[in-house]
Amino acid sequence: MAEKLLGKEVNKRIEERIREKMAFLSGKGIVPTLCTIRIGEDPGDVSYEKNAGKRCESLGIGWKKIVLPSDVSQEELLTLIRELNQEPDVHGVLLFRPLPRTMDAHLVENALLPGKDVDAMTDLSLAGVFTGKNEGFPPCTPQACMEILDHYGIDCTGKKAVVVGRSNVVGKPAACMLLKKNATVTVCHTRTRDLPEVTREAEILVVSAGHADTIREEHLKDGVIVIDVGINVNQEGRLCGDVSMEAAEKKASRYTPVPGGVGGVTTMVLMEHTVDACLRLNNLKAEEG
Amino acid sequence: MAEKLLGKEVNKRIEERIREKMAFLSGKGIVPTLCTIRIGEDPGDVSYEKNAGKRCESLGIGWKKIVLPSDVSQEELLTLIRELNQEPDVHGVLLFRPLPRTMDAHLVENALLPGKDVDAMTDLSLAGVFTGKNEGFPPCTPQACMEILDHYGIDCTGKKAVVVGRSNVVGKPAACMLLKKNATVTVCHTRTRDLPEVTREAEILVVSAGHADTIREEHLKDGVIVIDVGINVNQEGRLCGDVSMEAAEKKASRYTPVPGGVGGVTTMVLMEHTVDACLRLNNLKAEEG
Repeated sequence: MAEKLLGKEVNKRIEERIREKMAFLSGKGIVPTLCTIRIGEDPGDVSYEKNAGKRCESLGIGWKKIVLPSDVSQEELLTLIRELNQEPDVHGVLLFRPLPRTMDAHLVENALLPGKDVDAMTDLSLAGVFTGKNEGFPPCTPQACMEILDHYGIDCTGKKAVVVGRSNVVGKPAACMLLKKNATVTVCHTRTRDLPEVTREAEILVVSAGHADTIREEHLKDGVIVIDVGINVNQEGRLCGDVSMEAAEKKASRYTPVPGGVGGVTTMVLMEHTVDACLRLNNLKAEEG
Repeated sequence: MAEKLLGKEVNKRIEERIREKMAFLSGKGIVPTLCTIRIGEDPGDVSYEKNAGKRCESLGIGWKKIVLPSDVSQEELLTLIRELNQEPDVHGVLLFRPLPRTMDAHLVENALLPGKDVDAMTDLSLAGVFTGKNEGFPPCTPQACMEILDHYGIDCTGKKAVVVGRSNVVGKPAACMLLKKNATVTVCHTRTRDLPEVTREAEILVVSAGHADTIREEHLKDGVIVIDVGINVNQEGRLCGDVSMEAAEKKASRYTPVPGGVGGVTTMVLMEHTVDACLRLNNLKAEEG
């Protein structure tokens, strides 16, 4: 019987840190504020936005919600981002992506002030993840994976970690973060020959493939720790990850369920980034309190 | 008997490309120019600088050589970099690193105009390597490794590539480049448990460990392709790589010798970056010629 690595347990710890920092900021009369920018009505974006809004409310973080029509022009979006850069009462900006194909994504993404870039949209943030220097903020999802490993006391040093997926928002940053934790890291993807052979080597397996049941029993070594980043809807209309839960139950020693695993931690990491951005933008450290 | 992957063969191809671009620029009356900045008298830096100067001369690329005393202040260095940013006749700047410990490396490195950053010192260049977007210029050494693979027609798709070393200048960028070439990539380092077991899985092995004889016979699978980035001096005072040449001869199908492998290609890549930087800074494309 595998142990579930529960997001809510991890979140308790992050929430404690956030509440301490919030108390400190409150003493200075500052309310950290997140601005979300959604373009169009993608259901995934709407759902994430709603969860972020709820979290903001429960933590006392301000929330500015901006929704733009799907035919918004690049110039309008750039003008908005530049206004938000100047706006002293907005500390974190989350722009839902991918952007409309007509836009120059690199230009738009790098228009944001790196200090307000709470989900690693800018080059500065990405370079920080790559070099391990902690410039900017890392992307929330892979950091949520690391928070889970940390909370459950999972030492990565010398372990074989395998990441399935090589996206710039999850796979590659997760690989860099695991390297920084001294794991020996392998990145697999759609062009990997014999995926089960590679993933069966993993002692820690991070899966961000984007398809249900990408990882089945034959992909798992006995006792593996599985972090499942996937969020899919299965044939019965239920939420599921990229890893077969039956397979994880049978083979893994510990795994993150979907729902109840990585997803909820991602939103909480976004909250902490917003509070940290607020501290940095005000040249404050919570410890000073 | 293993086949040697010779840097000079690869360089012929790069040199052809450079000469075409040079002819085009020459028609416009433009001389691409590299500026090297060396601090102190590190023998490795002096040797690399000398080779770069020779290459510039043989290709008709301008070379501005700046040598600063080892106690140069950060402010003096920053002022110099800012002047070079403004200098229209300098197109590429190579600053030898690591910088003196007293300096804020991140600040100095990012003072350079990304358009003149021919060896990936700035965040923009590093982010480009990480995301695979080809913003800026990639670091010369790992790109030299890729040039060798390309020249010799080695297709990485689906192959198991293992990188030994996780530095920001070689190991991590090489891993990103191999991922972009659709290899399944594993990164090993000093904290890797049982290195031979991991490297024996490699079909393509890139070694940047910084120590002679890091890779011996027991580390190599039969038929592996070995790219050796190391440059060391052995007990007999001879140049050698990180891979035992006897072991490579015995086990590999193809390997880069040291000297004669990656090193010389690195300098040639630096030359091409300088010429490309010159084209970009002048808003030109050689194809237009």
